[in-house]
Amino acid sequence: MTDFPAAEFAARFKRAQTLMAAADFDALLLTTEAEVRYFTGFRSLFWQSPTRSWFVILPQSGAPVAIIPAIGADLMGRTWINDIRSWPSPRGFDEGISLLVEALSPYRRIGLPMGEESSLRMPLTDFQTLQSSLKAKFADCTPLIKSLRTVKSEAEIEILKEICQIGSRAFSRVPDFATAGTPLSEVFRRFRIALLEEGAEETPYVVGGAGQGGYTDVISPPDASPLAQGDVLMLDTGASLKGYFCDFDRNFAIGTASDAARAAHARLWDATEAGLEAARAGTTTAQLFVAMQSVLKGGSDVGRYGHGLGMQLTEWPSIAAHDHTELQAGMVLTLEPSLMLDETRMMVVEENILITKDAPVLLTQRAPRELPVI
Amino acid sequence: MTDFPAAEFAARFKRAQTLMAAADFDALLLTTEAEVRYFTGFRSLFWQSPTRSWFVILPQSGAPVAIIPAIGADLMGRTWINDIRSWPSPRGFDEGISLLVEALSPYRRIGLPMGEESSLRMPLTDFQTLQSSLKAKFADCTPLIKSLRTVKSEAEIEILKEICQIGSRAFSRVPDFATAGTPLSEVFRRFRIALLEEGAEETPYVVGGAGQGGYTDVISPPDASPLAQGDVLMLDTGASLKGYFCDFDRNFAIGTASDAARAAHARLWDATEAGLEAARAGTTTAQLFVAMQSVLKGGSDVGRYGHGLGMQLTEWPSIAAHDHTELQAGMVLTLEPSLMLDETRMMVVEENILITKDAPVLLTQRAPRELPVI
Repeated sequence: MTDFPAAEFAARFKRAQTLMAAADFDALLLTTEAEVRYFTGFRSLFWQSPTRSWFVILPQSGAPVAIIPAIGADLMGRTWINDIRSWPSPRGFDEGISLLVEALSPYRRIGLPMGEESSLRMPLTDFQTLQSSLKAKFADCTPLIKSLRTVKSEAEIEILKEICQIGSRAFSRVPDFATAGTPLSEVFRRFRIALLEEGAEETPYVVGGAGQGGYTDVISPPDASPLAQGDVLMLDTGASLKGYFCDFDRNFAIGTASDAARAAHARLWDATEAGLEAARAGTTTAQLFVAMQSVLKGGSDVGRYGHGLGMQLTEWPSIAAHDHTELQAGMVLTLEPSLMLDETRMMVVEENILITKDAPVLLTQRAPRELPVI
Repeated sequence: MTDFPAAEFAARFKRAQTLMAAADFDALLLTTEAEVRYFTGFRSLFWQSPTRSWFVILPQSGAPVAIIPAIGADLMGRTWINDIRSWPSPRGFDEGISLLVEALSPYRRIGLPMGEESSLRMPLTDFQTLQSSLKAKFADCTPLIKSLRTVKSEAEIEILKEICQIGSRAFSRVPDFATAGTPLSEVFRRFRIALLEEGAEETPYVVGGAGQGGYTDVISPPDASPLAQGDVLMLDTGASLKGYFCDFDRNFAIGTASDAARAAHARLWDATEAGLEAARAGTTTAQLFVAMQSVLKGGSDVGRYGHGLGMQLTEWPSIAAHDHTELQAGMVLTLEPSLMLDETRMMVVEENILITKDAPVLLTQRAPRELPVI
């Protein structure tokens, strides 16, 4: 009844238990959407409501326990999880905390994601109550979760391949509606519809920009300004299928492309090519960064040249000088070199790849080296 | 350059400062999307990336300070905020924490949302570093933020009215594509497209269910099962415009409606009617719950009969027996009574309303009392 067979979740949990033993965790406590979904298969958009806390406990030995609001018990009951404890939420007091205390009381050292890219999805006052009600110590288990989630299974890779192809087909339709005079907000809307028509289930992330010869940022919502001759339009999408994301962008020149814009696009393409050449199992993300940087000789405020991809729009690792994650077969990454064209304008080109034992597999339909003119 | 004029944000900040003085907070620290957007106007889908932390400090006297990753400095620079401090993120160490420590060091009591419906969006290890680097005490400021955000301004209400009308128009098109034999996943896709075509900017929340005479839960993603004669289909949407949500649902019987389904729909409609009658400034949400409950004499696992609505799909308060929030003119709420039809099947009907000094204003086009048959 979930996106993967029960065996997939059992395998994930077993790997977690092996790592928990090695790291001396008696149990892990999970509170966030991606982690709960990764281990249980529970997928719902309802996480967007901040009202209720959701908890999953993975013991080093024994079965997983879901401690969740009653509204989710039916859906969780359709996963491989058998031990589901719920309370009528919201009720204004004890939002699952006494159930948590009872379930966690046997443990003396509990792993909790507290590090890089993590957050705790529960009220801090509730967490303080939990801490003071338990004798256990909480310790950071981010590296454990990261090591599991960054290497995708074959079933995960199949979904990622499919959503990247959906994104590629949607991008091929952009020339149909991104024309001079069309408001940027309308271009975004048409692009979302194209993504849905091509098979995306969700389009939670559509951003981009447009401006004469380049754009000034890559995270803005669109305004109603019409596209103009000489604009460079960039559309970036995190669209999703079964809760897995593509995350890549494409650039288009409207009517005409300046020499500077064309040169920047070609340089970014060459940097990606260097990334594709360097992206091998055993290489580190820092080395991959250097390979791309040696072509770019530039950079921007984005802060990295790509990142992990999967159940979230961005995941560990970062392709950045500080990140020394060793690439492994099964990792899915974005390559996302960016450049400043001048003090305010920038350009970014992004592809999604799968690391293998040999050359990486491109999941996206590669952008052309020459900046396309619409 | 933001969704509201600078005066709107200045007024919000000034109200916050008055409340901070009354509650003895020297400053507030905000880390979450809705709170940062409420006070700055910074709107971006980029919050979906968990990689980077974002911070805003509101001092009891003086100007707000944004401490944010460099990737967001350009967009934040287009808001009314002048004091923007950024760092090149991600960099693997000190993700804004030393800037935070410097900015917060003058204060001895700092408000942080730690209570009802809140979470802390930063790694817990970073928060521990922050705590140990400051002499200040952190205290819960959830009631302060709640009292501000629950009462909408005229400008916010205008947007909410518009997105509710967009949602109503999209629901009126459901009979065009929700027919026996159509896979539920395709119905969801077509509904998303209808929402976009009618003017929604985002469709982050489309859930629902279908089943013979009723459905078993209201938070599932769709599967590919075809709609069948006798099914009751429910579609629920949180679509958004300028970052503000509608949140309501509609029920449709496919081909034919059972007497039980029709009776349940009429009872839910009557409960909503009782809610509309009771929803007056000065009434509490608990009293509003009782008014609806007296008609329903039932309930479900949803846990409440509605909630606040605005920048998030669900906001405080809860229309529930435990919640004694006093209704005020300017609050926008959902009325969402639900019923169990038997041990597994349920039904829910939802409307969005604006509390005024007199009768509430219905923002959605009211569902018919009679369950519509497609």
